[in-house]
Amino acid sequence: MEKKKALITTVPFGDKNRFPLELLEDNDIEYVINPLGRKVTEDELAEMVDDFDVIIAGTEIISDKVMSRAKKLKLISRVGIGLDGVDLLAAERRGIKVSYTPDAPAPAVAELTIGLMLSLLRGTHIANAKMHRGEWQRIFGRRIPEITIGIIGAGRIGGRVIRRLSAFGTPRILVNDTHPDKDIASHMKLEWASKEDIYKQADLISVHLPLTAHTKNMIKKEQLLSMKPDALIINTARGGIINEQDLADVMRSGHLAGAAIDVFEQEPYHGPLAEIERCLLTCHMGSMSIDCRTRMEIEATEEAVRFLTGRSLEALVPETEYNVQKQGL
Amino acid sequence: MEKKKALITTVPFGDKNRFPLELLEDNDIEYVINPLGRKVTEDELAEMVDDFDVIIAGTEIISDKVMSRAKKLKLISRVGIGLDGVDLLAAERRGIKVSYTPDAPAPAVAELTIGLMLSLLRGTHIANAKMHRGEWQRIFGRRIPEITIGIIGAGRIGGRVIRRLSAFGTPRILVNDTHPDKDIASHMKLEWASKEDIYKQADLISVHLPLTAHTKNMIKKEQLLSMKPDALIINTARGGIINEQDLADVMRSGHLAGAAIDVFEQEPYHGPLAEIERCLLTCHMGSMSIDCRTRMEIEATEEAVRFLTGRSLEALVPETEYNVQKQGL
Repeated sequence: MEKKKALITTVPFGDKNRFPLELLEDNDIEYVINPLGRKVTEDELAEMVDDFDVIIAGTEIISDKVMSRAKKLKLISRVGIGLDGVDLLAAERRGIKVSYTPDAPAPAVAELTIGLMLSLLRGTHIANAKMHRGEWQRIFGRRIPEITIGIIGAGRIGGRVIRRLSAFGTPRILVNDTHPDKDIASHMKLEWASKEDIYKQADLISVHLPLTAHTKNMIKKEQLLSMKPDALIINTARGGIINEQDLADVMRSGHLAGAAIDVFEQEPYHGPLAEIERCLLTCHMGSMSIDCRTRMEIEATEEAVRFLTGRSLEALVPETEYNVQKQGL
Repeated sequence: MEKKKALITTVPFGDKNRFPLELLEDNDIEYVINPLGRKVTEDELAEMVDDFDVIIAGTEIISDKVMSRAKKLKLISRVGIGLDGVDLLAAERRGIKVSYTPDAPAPAVAELTIGLMLSLLRGTHIANAKMHRGEWQRIFGRRIPEITIGIIGAGRIGGRVIRRLSAFGTPRILVNDTHPDKDIASHMKLEWASKEDIYKQADLISVHLPLTAHTKNMIKKEQLLSMKPDALIINTARGGIINEQDLADVMRSGHLAGAAIDVFEQEPYHGPLAEIERCLLTCHMGSMSIDCRTRMEIEATEEAVRFLTGRSLEALVPETEYNVQKQGL
């Protein structure tokens, strides 16, 4: 019998822990790891997918066009949570199942976010750049309990960010969420607020939302300009929620004291934010802690193995995600 | 009657909040702010001090020689906690009182330390430097609950660091302190350990000690080499506790995954650590949050005003600090 085949598009994979690769090997599943070593484009992926039963996928675009070239494809198993790259409706039409690992990345993303907050608040990234150029210039910062923090999206990740902030004293936290989780509110003194009020009142804003038709370009020039002149903004969610070009323009004009951006509309990112020193940039590293990344890879691989060995799936994407895309992306 | 005169050596001063300067003005005290705009050397200070009744001081060296040139000096009021710059025994002999602000800087130093930990653990500073050079290279990191953290010195600052870590899950925390505070231990699962065990076992070590004869060069080549090859080390306490040249040599040899250094033997710092990218450098910014710095400046100024208006002092340095220096610095 011909071996089942899995295409692993997300890289690095099995790098810090070989266990997911061993899972495939032990179940006699052939696999190919994306040979380009970086996020593939839609066209590149379309050229690769023929002949595979499963894609163990990252954030690349898996469109109807890609799926049309994948004659054997029966499962997309996402290493991670965001589904903005996957055309769920096309997959449904074609009878391709989609699974994901929604919980695994959250602790790592939340921890990175707190680190970015503390860097922005104290100008650590600016001082470090100057020190490495031989410049000694002490920067005044602010502490978490002294500021108003705005959290937009208080789900798996935003909720964890809020809980971690609690150890730093009692900041004023404004929260916006379409489905407010009362359990979070009971942990801390939170204020539910409109996005507009958060833009106007917060000293530091962090976005923890999926990329959908509703959140794409949610924060454009208008919203950025409505923020305090010395506000700080963080995006560890998805590129495109904050319009990158508008952010660069607004910051170049002198507005906003800082931004920390981990996710970009096009990755790898090579754009104007890199020219702005008070912009702290990381390269989609939210989930890149060894333990969380390993857990994500193992969970996505286990789902692929379950599927290819005829067992029932445990991490299928819920109907609500399909409904989000039915509203148009 | 001739006006009383205060020399303010620490800069910036009264910059974000003029209140300390207004305190002096309202009490008819003449003041001069260090005109060099940077930390003064011992010789520069010796040239400046003649004619002042009080020094509102930073971390500069106030030696017997400096005091010998300060004929009117009756009080040194330190903006901050460290007394390594002040020759307490010479001050005692000359009848010069010394006060300080031991509690004010602690929250800001602790918060900066947590930020440096998170940056080191995720390689944020390295990714940011690369992104600003146009390089996209995702870095694997570790999360706080996955590692063993060593805290050397669990007093005002170390204790706060430990409490803030508690929100990130349950890391294994090894603590060394000459006077273990049982109240801290009851908050979290801590293990009291020898410094040698911390060097050997911890993935991340943070030092929160004063600079004394006992702590100067406490961490030299031998101690650095006894750490794990991928260990991380942080010094937000005082320059000289970790030998800078040894740290640079050891890191250049490839040992240690990262270091975050905020304090230096000579400040402003211009040394070899600036050539090492995995070394995260800030410029003695531990206490530089607007609120803590303002509180420190106000407390030190209030003490000076109390003294110059004949009221009793409230923040005199305790006998224990003199005893530390009697053991030799």
